[in-house]
Amino acid sequence: MAAPDPFPAGATLADVGEFGLIGELTRIFEQGEHVLVGPGDDAAVLRVRTGHVVVSTDLMVEGRHFRREWASGEDVGHRAAAQNLSDINAMGGRATSLTVGLAAPADLEAQWALDFARGFADECALVGASVVGGDLTRADQVVVAVTVLGACTVSPVLRSGARPGDVLALHGRQGWAAGGLAVLGRGFRSPRVLVEAYRRPAPPYDAGLVAAEAGATSMIDVSDGLLAEAAHLASASGVAIDVRRGAFEVPEPLHAVGAALGADPLSFVLGGGDDHALLATFEPSGVPDGWAVVGEVTEPGDAGAGAVTVDGAPYDGPTGWTHF
Amino acid sequence: MAAPDPFPAGATLADVGEFGLIGELTRIFEQGEHVLVGPGDDAAVLRVRTGHVVVSTDLMVEGRHFRREWASGEDVGHRAAAQNLSDINAMGGRATSLTVGLAAPADLEAQWALDFARGFADECALVGASVVGGDLTRADQVVVAVTVLGACTVSPVLRSGARPGDVLALHGRQGWAAGGLAVLGRGFRSPRVLVEAYRRPAPPYDAGLVAAEAGATSMIDVSDGLLAEAAHLASASGVAIDVRRGAFEVPEPLHAVGAALGADPLSFVLGGGDDHALLATFEPSGVPDGWAVVGEVTEPGDAGAGAVTVDGAPYDGPTGWTHF
Repeated sequence: MAAPDPFPAGATLADVGEFGLIGELTRIFEQGEHVLVGPGDDAAVLRVRTGHVVVSTDLMVEGRHFRREWASGEDVGHRAAAQNLSDINAMGGRATSLTVGLAAPADLEAQWALDFARGFADECALVGASVVGGDLTRADQVVVAVTVLGACTVSPVLRSGARPGDVLALHGRQGWAAGGLAVLGRGFRSPRVLVEAYRRPAPPYDAGLVAAEAGATSMIDVSDGLLAEAAHLASASGVAIDVRRGAFEVPEPLHAVGAALGADPLSFVLGGGDDHALLATFEPSGVPDGWAVVGEVTEPGDAGAGAVTVDGAPYDGPTGWTHF
Repeated sequence: MAAPDPFPAGATLADVGEFGLIGELTRIFEQGEHVLVGPGDDAAVLRVRTGHVVVSTDLMVEGRHFRREWASGEDVGHRAAAQNLSDINAMGGRATSLTVGLAAPADLEAQWALDFARGFADECALVGASVVGGDLTRADQVVVAVTVLGACTVSPVLRSGARPGDVLALHGRQGWAAGGLAVLGRGFRSPRVLVEAYRRPAPPYDAGLVAAEAGATSMIDVSDGLLAEAAHLASASGVAIDVRRGAFEVPEPLHAVGAALGADPLSFVLGGGDDHALLATFEPSGVPDGWAVVGEVTEPGDAGAGAVTVDGAPYDGPTGWTHF
């Protein structure tokens, strides 16, 4: 049974204080056996048996990456963990340890921070990763800073290995979170399955290693938009990529959203992020089960290396998200 | 010779764009030979020869941890790196790799971000550490999120090993940054040596390993205030600590500030942070050169474990900084 909530209803961060909150947060995070020194010292100490670590970091800012009225603290915790765990997945590795920094206004409810931590811990538990350290400070808006450490059991899959003749393949649901975000942005709460997909992405945490073992030549996770991520692969690999519209099965709820909002439902699939599906390239004979071939890698054409086309032509819709 | 600045004078983050800035920032960060995959992929990959990593994370928020009118971008970069490198120093280890997340308003000058990165890189170079990854996003105020990885060549020194009969010892200048912050807060820019100490701390990066090799029983770096950090050691170790006023040589510029502001100059030493001096406990016969004995570890008295006294009595001044 979960412990009762430790703070009075409505208590703010200012009410409970930094050290009171840190004590409760630390209690939420369980430590794996690889954690030699956990939270509470100047640094954590982690056993590393593989001879290397894989490391990535991400920021999430309130009002930009999430809104507290659109998602609970627990949801935001799940999303923050998921997008970082997914970065290790996209290398073909597995996350083992995370640190999390939380900057927040003094009038934030302490309960929100606890809910956030629980969602974060629950998402990490899906891959067996431990939250080994963190920081807590005051800011005008909520900012979540996560760093994830992991390891690969085979060679890491980089963005730069795609070769002409490879196929582009996708694993995991794609466009769902973008559809959910679109309806939330217009004040709706349904289709519920899409809203939930936005609030709690379900990255295919086992697919990265499978792809690496199958010889994926390049890989990335779709956080900012499928075509934008394809362009990152193409650019890093010095190739061009053509995506085929007809390769995508657009899920029924996206058709409903497209009809309601007057948008092409495929635009959520091609331009949407936040689901943390995996996009990878393989030799045509080497595509593992569960991956859908959605395009081809070609020699760079007139548009140069990094160009991404859709059915052989430039795409005129949004390809992804930019931060400035 | 340094490369010329790549952006037109006054260009903002919005003007140069996320990817334009990331390209220039990445150019600033040189990679050590342990970096197998550097910035630009979903994650970095680092060689680890020691069988473990030491990891810590910190947030710095504009208006709370720094002000852009009090310190240049380069200064803030130095400070952000120093406070993280110091956390590894306080374990008796050495930093090898850092990630840095920068959240900033769209109208921030791109030059500030470049200056920040240069200061950050220069500070990391003092210990031979590489900046291996990062994230850049938009926020209402500047927030810097740093995670540092490192390694120990002897057993990490925790906060929890102090024993009654040990002495408390300090290495590095202490109170200087607090004096500098106090004069800046009142609109002055001198004594310059204190203002510079606040803008660019000079942590004793070699002292942590020396202390570990000498058998330090506990250690912490002074980021939030000497008495507050002593209380962390006492609390984690289940002991009490008495600090001796007469053990500190108060530097001349702090006397000047004390006189000008009507404050006890020793209060900057006892309550000030930000210099990232090291505070450690040793057996009385085991204090290494360069460390000043400033107190004693005792059995917990009536005030219980974690109590810190000054000359045997409770201290009534500020002991350190709290975040909420």
